[in-house]
Amino acid sequence: MSTAPSDLDDLHVIIPAGGAGTRLWPLSRAGRPKFLLDLTGSGRTLLQQTWDRVTKLVPPERVHVVTGPRHADAVRAQLPGLTSVFVEPSPRDSMPAIGLATAVVLARHPEAVVASFAADHVITGEDRFADAVAQAVRTARTGAVTTIGISPRSPSTAFGYVESGAPLAVDGAPSARTVVRFVEKPDEETARAYLRAGTFSWNAGMFVTRADVLLGHLARLQPTLHAGLQRIAAAWDGPDAQTVLEAVWPSLTRIAIDHAVAEPVSLTGGIATVPGRFGWDDIGDFAALHELGVSGDTGVVWVDADGLVRTTGGVTVAVVGIPGAVVVQTDDALLVTTVEHAQRVKEVPAALAASGRTDLV
Amino acid sequence: MSTAPSDLDDLHVIIPAGGAGTRLWPLSRAGRPKFLLDLTGSGRTLLQQTWDRVTKLVPPERVHVVTGPRHADAVRAQLPGLTSVFVEPSPRDSMPAIGLATAVVLARHPEAVVASFAADHVITGEDRFADAVAQAVRTARTGAVTTIGISPRSPSTAFGYVESGAPLAVDGAPSARTVVRFVEKPDEETARAYLRAGTFSWNAGMFVTRADVLLGHLARLQPTLHAGLQRIAAAWDGPDAQTVLEAVWPSLTRIAIDHAVAEPVSLTGGIATVPGRFGWDDIGDFAALHELGVSGDTGVVWVDADGLVRTTGGVTVAVVGIPGAVVVQTDDALLVTTVEHAQRVKEVPAALAASGRTDLV
Repeated sequence: MSTAPSDLDDLHVIIPAGGAGTRLWPLSRAGRPKFLLDLTGSGRTLLQQTWDRVTKLVPPERVHVVTGPRHADAVRAQLPGLTSVFVEPSPRDSMPAIGLATAVVLARHPEAVVASFAADHVITGEDRFADAVAQAVRTARTGAVTTIGISPRSPSTAFGYVESGAPLAVDGAPSARTVVRFVEKPDEETARAYLRAGTFSWNAGMFVTRADVLLGHLARLQPTLHAGLQRIAAAWDGPDAQTVLEAVWPSLTRIAIDHAVAEPVSLTGGIATVPGRFGWDDIGDFAALHELGVSGDTGVVWVDADGLVRTTGGVTVAVVGIPGAVVVQTDDALLVTTVEHAQRVKEVPAALAASGRTDLV
Repeated sequence: MSTAPSDLDDLHVIIPAGGAGTRLWPLSRAGRPKFLLDLTGSGRTLLQQTWDRVTKLVPPERVHVVTGPRHADAVRAQLPGLTSVFVEPSPRDSMPAIGLATAVVLARHPEAVVASFAADHVITGEDRFADAVAQAVRTARTGAVTTIGISPRSPSTAFGYVESGAPLAVDGAPSARTVVRFVEKPDEETARAYLRAGTFSWNAGMFVTRADVLLGHLARLQPTLHAGLQRIAAAWDGPDAQTVLEAVWPSLTRIAIDHAVAEPVSLTGGIATVPGRFGWDDIGDFAALHELGVSGDTGVVWVDADGLVRTTGGVTVAVVGIPGAVVVQTDDALLVTTVEHAQRVKEVPAALAASGRTDLV
């Protein structure tokens, strides 16, 4: 029944589903994080959109979601076709999450290529996405850890960048290049220089790699973490899986895949990149949501104002004299801000938590 | 049982209760106007506060409320002690409203002094208010139409002004002066000049006059209106009161007391003023409400913001990056603006009415 392309037979997709999205409060909450929400009004949550996208490339049984215990039930409920869920006992950042799934996949499929795609990004242009994934998989088979870099639309200071170097001449992946370096979120002047240079792309955290290659890098760069993951993977298909997971997990180094593997390996030429020429957004805040053209409520009365209004319905909203207004209401909370201040929304759940109102966080 | 001061035995108070307060949408509506609301969070509506204030000066049976048919039941419900309600068949502005009550009072009490106080103003400092009223009554007894002018706190452009002239040397009213002229809402430069001059006060529409004097001015200046009011008053205590009211009312000139009497009579020296040194506000918009120090909801999360938040409760509000924010929510509507744009709120019910959503107006 699978319509997955036959040339991706070795591909497994890992979807790390974590991160609360505190800049999207009050829509996103600790117990109802961004990836579980239908932010774009499409009728599908961001997690479901991710699932829909990757199950066009691989059959459902080769999709693995890594999430926290608080969200495992919601993940299963949203994805009835999902067969593989890894429940992290506690959040340890992206390397343990992706590493766990990779180690288990590797134990079962020694030739597997794994691709990691965040659960809460928006992508448009699925053909271009599929093409980028196919080129990345072909590049990864050569032994390179391959990142899909997003062709930048603007000199954004909200993302890290990937600088590409020489073409790699991979068969079937004409766009693949070596990665010169990863750079952290730049200031605006630097971002403008990157955009002019034409050799920088946004780091969207999309990594495609042979499972054995990733684990090999880990063994060398993060041996303790690697050993822990190996212990869990060895027990995974046996009766002690949960016991071992819970015993070992807290000892794993808390580190992002960028710091654990991508950056150090780039120094020795082991990272490749292929360009992602599809539409992409991580919807980091309400300004991003507004920029995506999400219209929000209809029937809003705007007087010398515009912006994004989103309520639970049944209420007529009027905004007077505030360009770029952001008005977001849930059953128990109401946020009023502007797109200009969208980044600071994360201070609201922080303030609520500090004053003990954890029910609202 | 009355605790009213004996030297105000001839005083009747008229409370015109009209005006929707469209700049206070969505709190105020056509069917739930400003005077029926507890805007200040005191536990008493503006109408009830007005009632409480004037029934310290006169017994309840000498208080007369003039209102529209849509609000008569609510007025009676809010003021159980009220015995005299005049229901205008349609709004004809303040002169017919005040004139009707005055004509009826005059028919019953030829020596009466009437004082008109709006139903929807906030006053603080009741002793000073009582003193101003007492001085105004004594001045009115001499035959002057007397206005209580509010000592200006600022060069406001939101109010008309009253310019005072020479002292009048009225016994028991040492502050009474003649009125030189009434002026419309000034521009800011003019308002500053008024404040510097020290002889200008805000026109709060508080008129105190002998009933026969007011009707005399009307007979001369607005003879048609006067004749109509006399017809209604002659029938008022008989069986045809309602029939005559409904027959005559639509023919009455629609005019404000300022234009009908105060301004023309001031030209011939017939208007006096006494200063009102009490706190006064007409709460014209949310900026005024905010300026009154009405705090609104507690538990609001302010991030680089301040202002006025008022909801129906049960919702935690966060405002990020908007100084002077105004957030007002009712069961069916939500307004977001700033104190700076508070005057433009009236455009919201206008827009809603224009698009046929009269249920929200």
